[in-house]
Amino acid sequence: MKRFFLVAAAALSVTVALPAAAQFQKPEDAIKYRKAAFSVMATHFGRLGAMANGRIPFDAKVAAENADIALAMSKLPYAAFPEGSDKGDTKAKAEIWTEGDKFRASAAKMQEEMVKLNAAAKTGSVDNLKAAFGPTGAACKGCHDAYRKE
Amino acid sequence: MKRFFLVAAAALSVTVALPAAAQFQKPEDAIKYRKAAFSVMATHFGRLGAMANGRIPFDAKVAAENADIALAMSKLPYAAFPEGSDKGDTKAKAEIWTEGDKFRASAAKMQEEMVKLNAAAKTGSVDNLKAAFGPTGAACKGCHDAYRKE
Repeated sequence: MKRFFLVAAAALSVTVALPAAAQFQKPEDAIKYRKAAFSVMATHFGRLGAMANGRIPFDAKVAAENADIALAMSKLPYAAFPEGSDKGDTKAKAEIWTEGDKFRASAAKMQEEMVKLNAAAKTGSVDNLKAAFGPTGAACKGCHDAYRKE
Repeated sequence: MKRFFLVAAAALSVTVALPAAAQFQKPEDAIKYRKAAFSVMATHFGRLGAMANGRIPFDAKVAAENADIALAMSKLPYAAFPEGSDKGDTKAKAEIWTEGDKFRASAAKMQEEMVKLNAAAKTGSVDNLKAAFGPTGAACKGCHDAYRKE
């Protein structure tokens, strides 16, 4: 898995996938998908946080693996915000669709920080990981504050 | 995203991640994670099925993208079956832990078929996609029949 994600990260470019409503038959399918993708991302991002905060020991190999998966996952959710998917089992705010450009910019910001976090994780320095973790978390939080209900 | 996953798939080797219970603080965290990873995989696998079965038009580029994401996701869930995660919001059968070797072999079979499906999807031939989709679906079903409750 490590080799896979290392190569993947090396080839990565930052893009926010455009909404592709046709990919989901029903709004609830899109909701389920984006929640799942965010959840997998959060698990791996959380492990980096645990290392950055000293809750678990820093391990350069494990950090790199988790950073690669988090980065890969950061690409997926944004294709799953079709019109009409503001209703149902979701905390998505209406602003996602009424100010779509700002939402996409916020998503892109997170993805950019995730690229930096990935690079930092691969330096093998926990100090670099710590330094990059905060801004990435802030980008997550910024989007949550603006576009996710309590 | 396409370039990312193309390179990722090219670098892929088939391995089943060993259970790593320490990665999850609580059994319910592991359950949530593996369900999310399977769900994302199923979405992309389902799109390949829709093309293979003619429900949506075959598009070689879209097929390759979906095959790459499905393949990447197929690597993730199996680290999330720690001991004790048979209880809670899960359909996992006890046999996953009582016959772990067979379970892991069944998982590896799916991953192998997913590699073949990926290669087939990239030939640009819907007939090749159709031919590979069946065995992959059968591998999914085999594991579900043996290790997932109704």
